[in-house]
Amino acid sequence: MAIDLNCDMGESFGAYTLGADEALMPLVTSANIACGYHAGDPMVMDRTVRLALRHGVGIGAHPGFPDLLGFGRRAMHLRPEEIENYVLYQVGALAAFARSVEAELTHVKPHGALYNMAARDPEIARAIARGVARAGPRLILVGLAGSALIQAAAEVGLPAAREGFADRAYEPDGSLRPRHLPEAILTDPEVAAEQALRIARYREVIASNGERIPLVADTLCIHGDTPGAVEIARAVRHRLEEAGVDVMPMGQFLLPI
Amino acid sequence: MAIDLNCDMGESFGAYTLGADEALMPLVTSANIACGYHAGDPMVMDRTVRLALRHGVGIGAHPGFPDLLGFGRRAMHLRPEEIENYVLYQVGALAAFARSVEAELTHVKPHGALYNMAARDPEIARAIARGVARAGPRLILVGLAGSALIQAAAEVGLPAAREGFADRAYEPDGSLRPRHLPEAILTDPEVAAEQALRIARYREVIASNGERIPLVADTLCIHGDTPGAVEIARAVRHRLEEAGVDVMPMGQFLLPI
Amino acid sequence: MAIDLNCDMGESFGAYTLGADEALMPLVTSANIACGYHAGDPMVMDRTVRLALRHGVGIGAHPGFPDLLGFGRRAMHLRPEEIENYVLYQVGALAAFARSVEAELTHVKPHGALYNMAARDPEIARAIARGVARAGPRLILVGLAGSALIQAAAEVGLPAAREGFADRAYEPDGSLRPRHLPEAILTDPEVAAEQALRIARYREVIASNGERIPLVADTLCIHGDTPGAVEIARAVRHRLEEAGVDVMPMGQFLLPI
Amino acid sequence: MAIDLNCDMGESFGAYTLGADEALMPLVTSANIACGYHAGDPMVMDRTVRLALRHGVGIGAHPGFPDLLGFGRRAMHLRPEEIENYVLYQVGALAAFARSVEAELTHVKPHGALYNMAARDPEIARAIARGVARAGPRLILVGLAGSALIQAAAEVGLPAAREGFADRAYEPDGSLRPRHLPEAILTDPEVAAEQALRIARYREVIASNGERIPLVADTLCIHGDTPGAVEIARAVRHRLEEAGVDVMPMGQFLLPI
Repeated sequence: MAIDLNCDMGESFGAYTLGADEALMPLVTSANIACGYHAGDPMVMDRTVRLALRHGVGIGAHPGFPDLLGFGRRAMHLRPEEIENYVLYQVGALAAFARSVEAELTHVKPHGALYNMAARDPEIARAIARGVARAGPRLILVGLAGSALIQAAAEVGLPAAREGFADRAYEPDGSLRPRHLPEAILTDPEVAAEQALRIARYREVIASNGERIPLVADTLCIHGDTPGAVEIARAVRHRLEEAGVDVMPMGQFLLPI
Repeated sequence: MAIDLNCDMGESFGAYTLGADEALMPLVTSANIACGYHAGDPMVMDRTVRLALRHGVGIGAHPGFPDLLGFGRRAMHLRPEEIENYVLYQVGALAAFARSVEAELTHVKPHGALYNMAARDPEIARAIARGVARAGPRLILVGLAGSALIQAAAEVGLPAAREGFADRAYEPDGSLRPRHLPEAILTDPEVAAEQALRIARYREVIASNGERIPLVADTLCIHGDTPGAVEIARAVRHRLEEAGVDVMPMGQFLLPI
Repeated sequence: MAIDLNCDMGESFGAYTLGADEALMPLVTSANIACGYHAGDPMVMDRTVRLALRHGVGIGAHPGFPDLLGFGRRAMHLRPEEIENYVLYQVGALAAFARSVEAELTHVKPHGALYNMAARDPEIARAIARGVARAGPRLILVGLAGSALIQAAAEVGLPAAREGFADRAYEPDGSLRPRHLPEAILTDPEVAAEQALRIARYREVIASNGERIPLVADTLCIHGDTPGAVEIARAVRHRLEEAGVDVMPMGQFLLPI
Repeated sequence: MAIDLNCDMGESFGAYTLGADEALMPLVTSANIACGYHAGDPMVMDRTVRLALRHGVGIGAHPGFPDLLGFGRRAMHLRPEEIENYVLYQVGALAAFARSVEAELTHVKPHGALYNMAARDPEIARAIARGVARAGPRLILVGLAGSALIQAAAEVGLPAAREGFADRAYEPDGSLRPRHLPEAILTDPEVAAEQALRIARYREVIASNGERIPLVADTLCIHGDTPGAVEIARAVRHRLEEAGVDVMPMGQFLLPI
């Protein structure tokens, strides 16, 4: 019984600071590091890769749309080959920082609107998967559990990590409860920790209508930009470890040795 | 007696086309490909890497200042660690495109204002050299023959290629004649070809005052953005080959096998 | 019987040149000048405003999405207040260049994907109209004849110019024939001129099925980026003037004095 | 006896927040609002202009180098006409936001490296002054007291505001004590307030060697990005008002009515 905890990191830019990377890095097992398109810059990437390495955290790329002004959260309609090449560019740039400190990228998780579009649209999902595969055939592609992105990883022969959420409510059909609805976000660290454990141990989650629904996840997302992020991460990790779940970088249990 | 002919390539951007890459690629032996900072974008990089590969041309990175608006031709005063990381970022991104088609980068040549500043300023030169060395210890660093950049390559243990110019006049002290002075640019293909051959065969050049001065160059720059670039490249290559000079990618004679 | 001929201008950027502004400016009566988001920069804006002024051409803003890499041709999903403020920003910047040479902006025409989305989506159309109205209550908003953008101009009290196309085929329902279909583009200057005259004089167009359909247009678009653009513009203008149509800046017949 | 208190504002960008605009706006009398080049974006500009208006604070433009990655703090070597047009672009864009809420810009203060270069280099100073004058002949140009920028304003016929610093130590020659030297920054609010009052009332300052040197300033800069900025601003304003100094927007005492 093993699970990974991933968190978006390195989303500062120039004079602008964002996130609580220093505080969160010791609590997670995989870092998705921004690559300069929706956020991040070479100085931040260098710093964040070293920080992850110091804490034994898996280093992954977090490519997004070329939209710094919108932080990659706005849908952009690109051609598949644009997406493929934009992903390859970003992953390649981050990989250079990892290699320069004798590390290797373990995974890639698309950011924001790109992640959401890839969950639903097979063409976008495949374009991402091709870009990742060109960057390295052993890179784990992280996508929403049950989404088109997980399917696309299989199609191109990439290992995939199915992502679940400790701090988001689920609908009976297995989708995430939309943020604008009440009780969509689980802000109580203990409630989030409870959900994390249920996912890790029983491979299920309690949906918003009280039903138990199956949910198989290899990695749980810790949102770094919510106010109580550090407390949630700490509670989740503690509960999982206390219950005997192996909390470890996804590469250690998803990749063939 | 071997020499390389290098040319800046892949400097188009989005809807904007620049240069005559298709016409020049068959005539040169090394391509310095822009990496998205001063010019170039992931689509252009992909296309240009494949074009170089098809012609057996050495694939190199051409990192520049983050100044698309100024095409990297305007001096920017950055800290050395910014330069180092910006170079690593750009080289890493391009390397991913090369690897994705089973090729390896052979060299790195800084662009525009970065190249010029690195020729004179040892601190900037060393920052570039460190960035390149972190991207790969076998990458050849291309710099002005006799410049601080060549010195910096030696300091960090990188192979270096000393660059000469077929189409630029030299001053008696070995520096390039400033562009605003008369006869600074050799526009006649035959005159440029003559200078190329003199550099390749006799390791010297005739300076603007008529004096012969020594000039050891491993690679000659073909400027792609001048009107007669294709004719100059053709004349230079023809004259060199006719005289029995081996015109080949710098990696073939500068790198230990 | 008056009509305006408009053309996108000032879409060069830094070292990149695009379009045939010098050749087209004498042939049109309104210039839609890019404002630095999808294309254009302050140097280009300054130059283009002066060029328009010299030829007595109406000066208009051509705001687009903040996507230089995609030339503003890719749909981006922005919130209405983002669109409103992005439009105000761009129009304000260009207005300063116009005022600095004692001229005033006469019109605003959205660019590329923004134009297309505004034709269909009333919310986007209204956001643009609000941004333009905040920049000046007498600015003419240029939109596809019969589109949501024309409707939005009316709602916020802005004058509007209905746009028709001399060089594009129309479908029986009055929409433009999609570019990927055969005979969507009228490349023969005489055919385009014929269509221009029909629109200007009879307020109708012959659709792709041969039917005559009504089309009321205040301004005709001359595409500057097609190969034969200059010839088409010349033929259109000549045919219109020959037939006694007053070809003049839209401000001269659309604005109350 | 009147003086203005100015502060850089609106330097957030997209998802990135910077500065304490809400807390500082009630304490100052002039806001220098970033225009989207070194910081700021149309949403932030709109919000900040309205905030200034609500507090009766003078609205000014804060143009900088096109270097978001370096926050405009890195010297860039641009041609004078580039600087002139970049300034006009930025001032024009912000002016549109001001006019859209029935306000007018009162002043322009260059940002960061542009400000510092303009203090020393008459050519750069004149380029800025020309750009501002083209945006409006009544705009007050804010520059370091005694600098080339103040001189340039006079040359082009613009009103100028000489800037002093409450929270920075001065050298005996009247220059600012470099930040890397000890006691260069006055972090004690009472000490800063004391210096502010001395400047406003006696038109002098105590230099780092204890000497009294003359300093005539129309406006005092409140740095918004230092930790104790709000306390310093409050102490300065309180001390000035307590002593009977009229703290008011520069436009009220520098511009002819």
